[in-house]
Amino acid sequence: MYDRMQTFTDGELTKIHDAALHILKTIGARFDDDEAIDIFKKAGLKVDGNIVRFTEKAIDQALASAPSKFVLSARNAEKSVVIGNESFGLAPGYGAAFIIDPEGHQRQATLSDYHAFCKLVHTSNVLNLNGFLMVMPSDVPSDIAYLDMLYANMVLCDKPFMGSPLSRTAARDCVNLAGILWGGKEDLPDTPVSASLITPLSPLQYTPEMAGSIIEFAGNNQACIFGALLMAGSSGPTSLAGILVQQSAEILAGVTLTQLVRAGAPVIIGGTSTIMDMRTGCLAMGAPEVARIGAATLQIAKFYNLPARTGCAVTDSWLPDAQAGIESALNLIIAIRNGSNFVLHAAGILGSYNAMSFEKFIIDEEVGNMALEYLKPIEITDQSIDLDLIKEVGVGGEYLTHPKTLEQCRSAFFMPYLANRNGYAGWQENGASRIEHRAAAILKDRLEAYEKPDIDPQIEKDLRKYIEKRKSE
Amino acid sequence: MYDRMQTFTDGELTKIHDAALHILKTIGARFDDDEAIDIFKKAGLKVDGNIVRFTEKAIDQALASAPSKFVLSARNAEKSVVIGNESFGLAPGYGAAFIIDPEGHQRQATLSDYHAFCKLVHTSNVLNLNGFLMVMPSDVPSDIAYLDMLYANMVLCDKPFMGSPLSRTAARDCVNLAGILWGGKEDLPDTPVSASLITPLSPLQYTPEMAGSIIEFAGNNQACIFGALLMAGSSGPTSLAGILVQQSAEILAGVTLTQLVRAGAPVIIGGTSTIMDMRTGCLAMGAPEVARIGAATLQIAKFYNLPARTGCAVTDSWLPDAQAGIESALNLIIAIRNGSNFVLHAAGILGSYNAMSFEKFIIDEEVGNMALEYLKPIEITDQSIDLDLIKEVGVGGEYLTHPKTLEQCRSAFFMPYLANRNGYAGWQENGASRIEHRAAAILKDRLEAYEKPDIDPQIEKDLRKYIEKRKSE
Repeated sequence: MYDRMQTFTDGELTKIHDAALHILKTIGARFDDDEAIDIFKKAGLKVDGNIVRFTEKAIDQALASAPSKFVLSARNAEKSVVIGNESFGLAPGYGAAFIIDPEGHQRQATLSDYHAFCKLVHTSNVLNLNGFLMVMPSDVPSDIAYLDMLYANMVLCDKPFMGSPLSRTAARDCVNLAGILWGGKEDLPDTPVSASLITPLSPLQYTPEMAGSIIEFAGNNQACIFGALLMAGSSGPTSLAGILVQQSAEILAGVTLTQLVRAGAPVIIGGTSTIMDMRTGCLAMGAPEVARIGAATLQIAKFYNLPARTGCAVTDSWLPDAQAGIESALNLIIAIRNGSNFVLHAAGILGSYNAMSFEKFIIDEEVGNMALEYLKPIEITDQSIDLDLIKEVGVGGEYLTHPKTLEQCRSAFFMPYLANRNGYAGWQENGASRIEHRAAAILKDRLEAYEKPDIDPQIEKDLRKYIEKRKSE
Repeated sequence: MYDRMQTFTDGELTKIHDAALHILKTIGARFDDDEAIDIFKKAGLKVDGNIVRFTEKAIDQALASAPSKFVLSARNAEKSVVIGNESFGLAPGYGAAFIIDPEGHQRQATLSDYHAFCKLVHTSNVLNLNGFLMVMPSDVPSDIAYLDMLYANMVLCDKPFMGSPLSRTAARDCVNLAGILWGGKEDLPDTPVSASLITPLSPLQYTPEMAGSIIEFAGNNQACIFGALLMAGSSGPTSLAGILVQQSAEILAGVTLTQLVRAGAPVIIGGTSTIMDMRTGCLAMGAPEVARIGAATLQIAKFYNLPARTGCAVTDSWLPDAQAGIESALNLIIAIRNGSNFVLHAAGILGSYNAMSFEKFIIDEEVGNMALEYLKPIEITDQSIDLDLIKEVGVGGEYLTHPKTLEQCRSAFFMPYLANRNGYAGWQENGASRIEHRAAAILKDRLEAYEKPDIDPQIEKDLRKYIEKRKSE
């Protein structure tokens, strides 16, 4: 194996870990939540106001009890996803306020857009996880929108989903709704049914919302995804080595809280730290630094033997042009081939996380399928080499009309549904289309053909009842 | 290091090699050139008509004498390029008949287009090799066009270039012109000054043009690039394992000829084998199989300890849309990070090799620069981690206004020249451009600012004289 990208030695990984430990021991991390502070105190850690100073022992214990691998259960059991080691999940974009059309026109997202993304995930042949907050609906009061999103997640799609870490209350509602979905909290599977994105407030802080969500999710054996999002030159140092150390410290602090709440609670660690573009002051998500930090973060996660979250089909472009294609594809393939276990923003995201594009969602799905194809090892056996065939065709022969070609050709190769493979004349005859216009046609068909997955009508009713009750409180 | 793509064991590589050997021993390979046949006969190999059957010893000797690394000399010595091991070259597209504009309109290429590509390569900050046949000029008789292309290569650009393997005569003219460029054939540097693309005619044949070019180039210590281009399901088996075996056999046959002509003559091995799209009958160059075969081929080349050629910014799209961006970027990054030493078609190519796009050339250059950035290891030292800075900023602090950020921010990060990093409002204010339109503006500036590199006027005159003489013969 030869790879010019993943080059950390064990010595370098240890150096990063030691530096992160040193930070956690000396300056510590801030948790703006009384219960979190109490938990740390009870564990014997030094607390100064809301600042917790960690010990190597506490960190080591947390790293030892967090599982290297777990199953994220789906209500359709066939769609449960293993997270960890060789197994991974792909989830859609997260956190966008806007929808962008193929020509780059922007509008505010609605709950109906959110529903459409749930339907696309349900029918996706490559995304195996539903998200949360794919878009922020502008037509629902923002303090209760999460209830509608969770309901859509559970009813419109039967894949494992992401939970609502917007506040401790939202996290609790997520767990309660999941309980109803499984026919009662006591019937929840032993493994988590949701994974929720916990983002530290860099440098080295957890807000009340995040700390509260950690306690609620970890306490109920739901997965926490630690997504460090440092911006080098702003919320983190300009040096990428410094970024790796600071984000490791932030993640280890959060992971320690999960394990103190419940030893063995599942976590996924990583993030999508990047740089601040010094000309525009903007978060640069298409920057090569995203994948460089991501590749390094994956090596750190493997060093800790924990499931890793890195990578995203993310770009700074505001429409699905070649820039969007290049940046998204590079970020995605690098994460997937390096061993990411949870790829958030794997489809649809544009404009440095600010917008979702339905057409780009369809395009990114094809990239995801290509990425899975790249991972297929080429089997080297006597049968697959088939020397007899090569001898039979011989020097200057042809394979096209050989019966084995006819027999194998339909299943042997990757078949794209979006990419043009026509010659120039054929492409012209078919309308000389751009990929985003072919994606628009597929999008329409997908949404029209969507069928809601079966669900027990009583459960659906109970979910709705819970939500209506919560909205009226 | 963890990588889901490059997974061959030594046992699998040996099995591929043994199967290729078996083919070369039993069915052999065809060389349609009398001198080549004589060379093989003199080396004691069994020859039957134009079919040569190889021995393990002959192959082993060739693999032992071909260098693992060599310098490709440029007339501007600072621009010489090391090919092999960790070092690599990037060359522009090759073999296209057409020019495509950003909207997908096609026209025949001219010599003036060829000149423009030479100028772009000369001024490129990422392509370190000039090509050959970037486009086929339609306004020059095809039998003598190579003379004009070689002249442009030598005069308009001072980087190492690719030679003309169109016939033995063309190869000889290339060597003669290189001799003039260096002030006399005896003044040619010890290392090659050109690298030429030798493509076997699959399955298992070398045409008179290719065999003759090998003899001429290897005999004059010029590099031969073996570029197998099997099409699975047509000129090769559908099984990718079979493809790897057949292309290895073809390459080993050609490499053996180079080493019999001149032991130690430099070679680069690999190719861009792919599949035939079963719906259109077209060569599918954006197919994931290209990079899968490429990744496997690189492992085989490393097994042989020879410089490798794989990868290309190639796509089946006919305009620089997201499909072009995705396919090109994926093929390029996979080749570069896996250790390719010679990446042909690194810029400008569209439409499965059939067309060049000036705007895509500029876009691919940015991808190439990103790829180089990805390869930069993150240095892990006390200084780069800088714990003092992290402590000083502390919990909840900010780095933006810290003197170290101001000091480092201008040089710390990758600066794109094409990618949009503006927010939505800024992007709108700047004209809401697509990347291909920003590329068009840069293209115009580059060509306007181009200055011909210095060359001894007598040498330039002598080159012209040689070419005019040859044209009149």
